[in-house]
Amino acid sequence: MLKNSHTEQIPVSDAEYELAKRLFPICRSITGDGVRETLKILTEYLPNLEIHEVSSGTKAFDWTVPDEWNIRDAYVVGPDGTKVIDFKINNLHLVGYSTPLDETMSLEELQPHLHSLPDQPELIPYVTSYYKRSWGFCIPHRDRLALKQGQYRVVIDSTLIPGHLTYGEIYIPGKSKKEIFFSTYICHPSMANNELSGPTVTTFLAKWVNSQTSLEYSYRFVFVPETIGSLVYLSRNLKPMQKNIEAGFVINCCGDEANFSFLPSRTGGTLADRVATHVLHNSVNEFTTYSFSQRASDERQYCSPRANLPVASIMRSKYHEYPEYHTSADDMSFISQRGLSETVEIYRRCVHVLESNLIPLTTTVGEPQLSSRGLYPTSGGQIDQSAISDIVNLTAYSDGRLDLIEIATLINRPSWCLAKSVQILEENGLLTTRRFNNRHIFIRKRN
Amino acid sequence: MLKNSHTEQIPVSDAEYELAKRLFPICRSITGDGVRETLKILTEYLPNLEIHEVSSGTKAFDWTVPDEWNIRDAYVVGPDGTKVIDFKINNLHLVGYSTPLDETMSLEELQPHLHSLPDQPELIPYVTSYYKRSWGFCIPHRDRLALKQGQYRVVIDSTLIPGHLTYGEIYIPGKSKKEIFFSTYICHPSMANNELSGPTVTTFLAKWVNSQTSLEYSYRFVFVPETIGSLVYLSRNLKPMQKNIEAGFVINCCGDEANFSFLPSRTGGTLADRVATHVLHNSVNEFTTYSFSQRASDERQYCSPRANLPVASIMRSKYHEYPEYHTSADDMSFISQRGLSETVEIYRRCVHVLESNLIPLTTTVGEPQLSSRGLYPTSGGQIDQSAISDIVNLTAYSDGRLDLIEIATLINRPSWCLAKSVQILEENGLLTTRRFNNRHIFIRKRN
Amino acid sequence: MLKNSHTEQIPVSDAEYELAKRLFPICRSITGDGVRETLKILTEYLPNLEIHEVSSGTKAFDWTVPDEWNIRDAYVVGPDGTKVIDFKINNLHLVGYSTPLDETMSLEELQPHLHSLPDQPELIPYVTSYYKRSWGFCIPHRDRLALKQGQYRVVIDSTLIPGHLTYGEIYIPGKSKKEIFFSTYICHPSMANNELSGPTVTTFLAKWVNSQTSLEYSYRFVFVPETIGSLVYLSRNLKPMQKNIEAGFVINCCGDEANFSFLPSRTGGTLADRVATHVLHNSVNEFTTYSFSQRASDERQYCSPRANLPVASIMRSKYHEYPEYHTSADDMSFISQRGLSETVEIYRRCVHVLESNLIPLTTTVGEPQLSSRGLYPTSGGQIDQSAISDIVNLTAYSDGRLDLIEIATLINRPSWCLAKSVQILEENGLLTTRRFNNRHIFIRKRN
Repeated sequence: MLKNSHTEQIPVSDAEYELAKRLFPICRSITGDGVRETLKILTEYLPNLEIHEVSSGTKAFDWTVPDEWNIRDAYVVGPDGTKVIDFKINNLHLVGYSTPLDETMSLEELQPHLHSLPDQPELIPYVTSYYKRSWGFCIPHRDRLALKQGQYRVVIDSTLIPGHLTYGEIYIPGKSKKEIFFSTYICHPSMANNELSGPTVTTFLAKWVNSQTSLEYSYRFVFVPETIGSLVYLSRNLKPMQKNIEAGFVINCCGDEANFSFLPSRTGGTLADRVATHVLHNSVNEFTTYSFSQRASDERQYCSPRANLPVASIMRSKYHEYPEYHTSADDMSFISQRGLSETVEIYRRCVHVLESNLIPLTTTVGEPQLSSRGLYPTSGGQIDQSAISDIVNLTAYSDGRLDLIEIATLINRPSWCLAKSVQILEENGLLTTRRFNNRHIFIRKRN
Repeated sequence: MLKNSHTEQIPVSDAEYELAKRLFPICRSITGDGVRETLKILTEYLPNLEIHEVSSGTKAFDWTVPDEWNIRDAYVVGPDGTKVIDFKINNLHLVGYSTPLDETMSLEELQPHLHSLPDQPELIPYVTSYYKRSWGFCIPHRDRLALKQGQYRVVIDSTLIPGHLTYGEIYIPGKSKKEIFFSTYICHPSMANNELSGPTVTTFLAKWVNSQTSLEYSYRFVFVPETIGSLVYLSRNLKPMQKNIEAGFVINCCGDEANFSFLPSRTGGTLADRVATHVLHNSVNEFTTYSFSQRASDERQYCSPRANLPVASIMRSKYHEYPEYHTSADDMSFISQRGLSETVEIYRRCVHVLESNLIPLTTTVGEPQLSSRGLYPTSGGQIDQSAISDIVNLTAYSDGRLDLIEIATLINRPSWCLAKSVQILEENGLLTTRRFNNRHIFIRKRN
Repeated sequence: MLKNSHTEQIPVSDAEYELAKRLFPICRSITGDGVRETLKILTEYLPNLEIHEVSSGTKAFDWTVPDEWNIRDAYVVGPDGTKVIDFKINNLHLVGYSTPLDETMSLEELQPHLHSLPDQPELIPYVTSYYKRSWGFCIPHRDRLALKQGQYRVVIDSTLIPGHLTYGEIYIPGKSKKEIFFSTYICHPSMANNELSGPTVTTFLAKWVNSQTSLEYSYRFVFVPETIGSLVYLSRNLKPMQKNIEAGFVINCCGDEANFSFLPSRTGGTLADRVATHVLHNSVNEFTTYSFSQRASDERQYCSPRANLPVASIMRSKYHEYPEYHTSADDMSFISQRGLSETVEIYRRCVHVLESNLIPLTTTVGEPQLSSRGLYPTSGGQIDQSAISDIVNLTAYSDGRLDLIEIATLINRPSWCLAKSVQILEENGLLTTRRFNNRHIFIRKRN
């Protein structure tokens, strides 16, 4: 499916889809046991996943960690005694963070607490009320219209009291303390593309990085509730993040089979932006590039002016851009094993490109004599230039300033296909290389 | 008519057109009583208009103020004793700066002194001879062909003797000495778009600026004869102009209803260029952008390398680009109240954008929590993002480097629609702002 | 043919084509008497052509000058006793640098030493084996298929023993030591566009530069064998080349009548790139711009990162881009007098542009008063702007930073058409000029 396959092939399985399917029924929110249960399942894949608990009331810049919300059951019984809305059938039925309740009321009294979509009358919308105490139910607009006059018993068996916000974190040290950062969120209830695709892809990407030996960069993966979670994480780690992160990615909305899409960092042009666009350009025939003004996830925090981290995002069907978004139609049929595993592969290519992103410098004046080293066909004239063009081009463009991504882009080749040639040239003493040029992060350092 | 209306609405009237109509019959030139009479009428609108007189023979860089020209009457009497050309019918009939004459001559002797347009046989051309003593008459080519053999009496009752060059100037001080500069010219006889539209629009713009309280910038408006007048003004004020002018505009050719057009400064990219293109882009559906190589007015002096001021121009039908240009067809029917008043509004928007052009900086790491301050809908999920996007985007892009014009351009909003949101954010302590960054004028300072 | 002709007209002749025709039959290679004979003929045109001999075994960076190859005769006699391949009919029949041989063998033994083109069965391919001792013959594929079983006598009367590599060089000193460098190669046997067009055009260009008096730049022309020759030249002259060369050109593949094409330097944006594109843009209606990644001649050495010279190339049908390339079909019918002489003229224009490439600075604030100096029509109004626009534009854009190429490009005029106006302005004291700004070569100096 993807162009320019990497030499390392990952065996085909349905593991990604199976994990998403297992996580799907859990009712997650920005706090509570749904998050803990989710993270616990992930530790089966990622034994080094560290779980952090942060108390309600903890400050995170302009924000405060809210009380912890847990939900056991919620339903509405209609005038005829049958359950007309039942959280146990679909956890989207309940507005997230709904306060406890057990009350009987008229339909008129109930109506202001109901949410539905007149334009998508079959679907349950996804609604939350994290920072204003409130309660409500979400139902298909078709069902709402069918509700009869009479008395309704409304039961919400929830708790909303001081507790903790929970998040997970993996740190995989490499040769350098400079790190590559991945963030995904684990606060959405039963929706698939937004947002089980992110935690699923991130889990399998982290599992693969865990299996790598001799990493150049260090890698960090965080599983946080959206917004408040990334803010809490930033507030605890801002300085080292600003010091160490060379490139970061928010992984979300990436489980379906639609074309890939790209959301740049605020400034654009960072290493994260360059890696992502290079990988996409060389892996698929077309992809959509959005503007940072179309952002709506945790890059809002990571890229904010005073955090100013080089964080971009590779997605498939982006939030706000598909009709199933934030409804019950974003279910397990919306995503697929192929969708999930291709995204894992795209991010794996990003890691490959980063790991091999040297700044090469040709050692000799003029071209090296490849034929004397067995690197060049010895018979001139009508020869096949393409077979040796990588080696020749690498020596021609390795000026000690351009990195491998820039050179690969100039010669229209995937960076990961040049690694072998770089190695050959280094072994023959024709190229020296260096790493971690500050120039890569000049944009982050501008302020 | 214009997109994205500003909150401040100016009452509709026909005041602009009426002023132009009143000024139209006056025979203006680069010196003389026509200029004085014109400026005197403008003082009725602009009591603070200061009139300057500069003696003939005064040096202005490479130029010298010429003798003052005044004209009382001019005509040509044909062989049959009737006036075949009469200055009193249309002042374009006389070549500007024609020397005095009362002589009788044959048609053959007269012909070299006649000017007409074979391709536009109904129109009187506009011709001047400021720096070479000469005389001549301009007539429709059709009339010229009808002239009969015989003796013609030619009378030009003019004076061309040492006197003065006259110009007007208004200075409206603001909080800063940094100033916004507007220049228009008052040297054209009876033509409407070029050039009564410029003095008319400038008068009403200056009148409106006069009425503003608490201006950030200082404002200066000059009414000069073209070329020699701007050179005289530059020669008397070069140093303070180079020190203080942050943006300047030549106002001319802006009274008809054609699409707007834009002439950049010599270097492009100055604050004047950025303001003008931002306002046009957000006010009209299309406008023409010319190259500085198509300039032909006082930007030739203001933008010349050793003056190097940031001066651009917003026009409608530009000189040289419409067939009526510099003929008797550029009359009061070519311009309109709507044309004039829309141009006043465009320049007023430029002033608004300049006055509110802060460099904002977000105060917190990450996004501020808008909901806790009542600035954000508290119920997540399916919400209307557009209602709050200005506030969110302002905090996201306010990095302390970009000014409001740049931010507004990045998020595709008119800068003048963001003022309210900037104010809200400042009042909530979420944004600090500063003014007058040298970066705005870096291009002017390059030399 | 070319647009915007220069005032200096070169008389039409067939001299260029006649030189190419005379050189065509000589069997050149990277060493040997064919090179010497070729250079000797060129000295008839260029008496100051200096011939250099470099011993076999001499190191040139990563390369070594190979043994010298000379060839007297080579043929293959078929089973029926007739010559089936004969070097004397076409010197492409023999693989370049074939080792001596006199042996009889079967067709099966002969086959691995034959080269032919199944897709172009009528043509003899061009094949060499400079750095691996080997031998072989090249024949039309059609003839190869007709070879009968039986014994073949193979005779190659060559020598391949220590000797010399030969190259030619002309240095024409100008007022400055800063120099313009031209390189062409004289190592190809009987092929016309690639590569007798290069030596021919270079000879006539050098002849013309020889005839110029009062040159601003110094000029250097080298006639080297491709690759090893440019490397040898670089190894002997690297430091002065890096110090002095302001712009350089590889002249090759430029003798036919196809559209011109342009190969930029590695970095692009050097003076060589700017001159070449300015001349092409103002001389022809369309030309092809290649990427440096499509390079295949001596710019590979001159532009290599550690040489880093500002060398570009103007060609017509570029190597690898026409089906006759490196075959017997690239013969004297492929090129023409018109093709060759137009290319000479294009490069002559490059020299003109370089010689006149001043950095002008207007002396006065504002525009100069042209009319008082007789440089401007004195009667305003409906005048012909185009007649004076060069002079007016030159004063408007001469800011002391832009050079004449940049100004000419901004006002969309050929630089060589502005020389007269620059002179007039200088004579009138309205412009000062300077030369040899380092900014021109900033890209070369970046490393």
